[in-house]
Amino acid sequence: MLNWESIFATRSSRMRASEIRELLKLLDRPDIISFAGGIPDPALFPDQEFKAAYADIFNSSAVNSALQYSVSEGYKPLREWLVKQMAALNIPCELENVFIVSGSQQGLDYLGKLFLSPDDTALVTWPTYLGALQAFNAYEPTYDQLTPNGNRTPDSYRAQASAAGGKVKFAYLSADFANPTGETVDQAGREKVLALAEELDIAVIEDAAYQSLRYDGNPIAPILATEIAKNGHINDTRTIYCGSFSKTLAPGLRVGFIVANAAVIRKLVLMKQAADLHSSTINQIAIAHVAERGFDAQVAKIKSVYSHRRNVMLAALEKYMPAGTSWTKPEGGMFIWVTLPKGIDGAKLLAKSLETAKVAFVPGKAFFADGSGENTFRVSFSCANDQMIEEGISRLGALIESEIGG
Amino acid sequence: MLNWESIFATRSSRMRASEIRELLKLLDRPDIISFAGGIPDPALFPDQEFKAAYADIFNSSAVNSALQYSVSEGYKPLREWLVKQMAALNIPCELENVFIVSGSQQGLDYLGKLFLSPDDTALVTWPTYLGALQAFNAYEPTYDQLTPNGNRTPDSYRAQASAAGGKVKFAYLSADFANPTGETVDQAGREKVLALAEELDIAVIEDAAYQSLRYDGNPIAPILATEIAKNGHINDTRTIYCGSFSKTLAPGLRVGFIVANAAVIRKLVLMKQAADLHSSTINQIAIAHVAERGFDAQVAKIKSVYSHRRNVMLAALEKYMPAGTSWTKPEGGMFIWVTLPKGIDGAKLLAKSLETAKVAFVPGKAFFADGSGENTFRVSFSCANDQMIEEGISRLGALIESEIGG
Repeated sequence: MLNWESIFATRSSRMRASEIRELLKLLDRPDIISFAGGIPDPALFPDQEFKAAYADIFNSSAVNSALQYSVSEGYKPLREWLVKQMAALNIPCELENVFIVSGSQQGLDYLGKLFLSPDDTALVTWPTYLGALQAFNAYEPTYDQLTPNGNRTPDSYRAQASAAGGKVKFAYLSADFANPTGETVDQAGREKVLALAEELDIAVIEDAAYQSLRYDGNPIAPILATEIAKNGHINDTRTIYCGSFSKTLAPGLRVGFIVANAAVIRKLVLMKQAADLHSSTINQIAIAHVAERGFDAQVAKIKSVYSHRRNVMLAALEKYMPAGTSWTKPEGGMFIWVTLPKGIDGAKLLAKSLETAKVAFVPGKAFFADGSGENTFRVSFSCANDQMIEEGISRLGALIESEIGG
Repeated sequence: MLNWESIFATRSSRMRASEIRELLKLLDRPDIISFAGGIPDPALFPDQEFKAAYADIFNSSAVNSALQYSVSEGYKPLREWLVKQMAALNIPCELENVFIVSGSQQGLDYLGKLFLSPDDTALVTWPTYLGALQAFNAYEPTYDQLTPNGNRTPDSYRAQASAAGGKVKFAYLSADFANPTGETVDQAGREKVLALAEELDIAVIEDAAYQSLRYDGNPIAPILATEIAKNGHINDTRTIYCGSFSKTLAPGLRVGFIVANAAVIRKLVLMKQAADLHSSTINQIAIAHVAERGFDAQVAKIKSVYSHRRNVMLAALEKYMPAGTSWTKPEGGMFIWVTLPKGIDGAKLLAKSLETAKVAFVPGKAFFADGSGENTFRVSFSCANDQMIEEGISRLGALIESEIGG
């Protein structure tokens, strides 16, 4: 029989199963308290609003166009709503700057596809969003470490990229409440990333998946807003802003967006036309209905719930984590990042935890492009109630304490 | 400012605007009779059935999971329905062989991504589906001509692929009522393609987008069915079957599927996880509802309408096309392919037609990987009523006659 490996493209060797996905299967085990997933709490979905939106589509003359093929750039009223939304973030733009994708994960895939030839270099933080690494891996890049507040010289990046056989193409980062750390890059760090990108003459990919979910502290301008303020116009910028409705409205519709220089958007539209024609017409219309009628109220609702859960989890960590551990104090998002004493392996801890403490989390190693970070793990508070958090972190703290002791 | 071309991947030079897409814009001009689009007639969409399906989702306990993230392989009840559907086509398979994609265009993109490294060779017919060429182009292959009933030797393919710097990876074809020709590959041709693939040890990609739309003549077994009959089990086959709900139910939901060897499906699932996580959960559920409740009735309805339109168009061609032209006589699908006398250019004819005859069609050249086929064009009957067909083909025939005469 055909030996498939012999005809797969070279990129296929970098397509491997996701630890997070495998772990999500554990959510079904009722005896496990899981902080592993990074998904929104379905109890907070605006289901009545979506119900009304779909019903309205089928009760209007829009039904035939909702079920039909549509343009690759996306549903115009949704793009118009996004233009207004971006203006409120100090990102003035036009329709030509807004492109709808099937979830911001697809945006990352398309940007990898647009920029990366094999052996090119992508700059990412250590750790970074696992899904970004997976999306980019298909285009066979190497990675170098982006340190927003560090002081690596442009020449050192160029030299390393050249040694790897390609060029640096972009710096990817999540500036607000990043997955997995929950941390935010401050204004100085954002400006340094932008300055580095200018010196290297590369793009910046700003992953804003959690941008709306700030619970306290002062908002920091998106990198794209900073660059527009500096250069005068979005069509004179190098920052590509990737947004999502998955954390605010609902992920199951697969609707996200990219806002950027029109030169990039035009290329992405051509790419999408060849890759999947367009994102679901009916879902784009439904998202536009729900967003127009009550995006701010929905965001206010979920922020109130998630910020409470973050508070409860931070208090529980303070109460139960043994000396020698540390963790981030996120101002938003869904995640807290725990660092264990050196020598304690997050993956081994998870295996033990699933047997004894019955608590799930995500070991940190997968989020590091260089495979480091063994002594870290990610917990999410988005789907956990007070009792689960108290109980789960208590058990986890006890397990870690015994590991340190042992 | 950043010179984007300097950081785009090499593949981006092959991403160009689609002539068909540009032409679709003409559909809005009320004075033009258009046979250009290849889209289903929206008047035939099962809109009441979809209305009920979405309403049922929001009135059931499934609503939260419909709005939530879901697994990359697709919604299980839809895959179960497809297993039964495939059995009726003599394609016995299991859940592990069925994978949901966001329209069969995405399936083609993923298969290009899975198999093609730069300079590998894809075998396609001359002409072939333009969207397949666009999807594959992103992975920088070369093309060689697949001739289902021809007699090229495997060695000649190997030599040409090797000269191009890679290997032959797959043969792609639409065996039933192909876009753009409307033609069907007979059983002998299918077996020859399979034999060639076996000798070259490559995959066969069977694009079955129009498979359900047979209006007369005897059904011919899918290539995958033939191969399973020969080898005993789908997991011992090399044929990858790509299907769509876009022509039968509705394209706006973006739901298609791939049925193949589990070894291929496993790799595609990993690819999708990295590329867009999964296809829209709610749309997969809605498609499953509508398919379970009345797929056959819906297909019977559209076949009756489209077969009538095909008959009217064939009769009009017979009546109005001048001597020296010829055209295909499709047994199904949406398209008829017209060949003009040598020297008459389809693209120039279109430009003239839009000014004088006011009839739109798609010039054939874009469907040829080698850029030949100038004297051909595609007409679609799927969205045209009797009067439009009579009037449009009459005007087009007169224009062509004057071109031949002049």
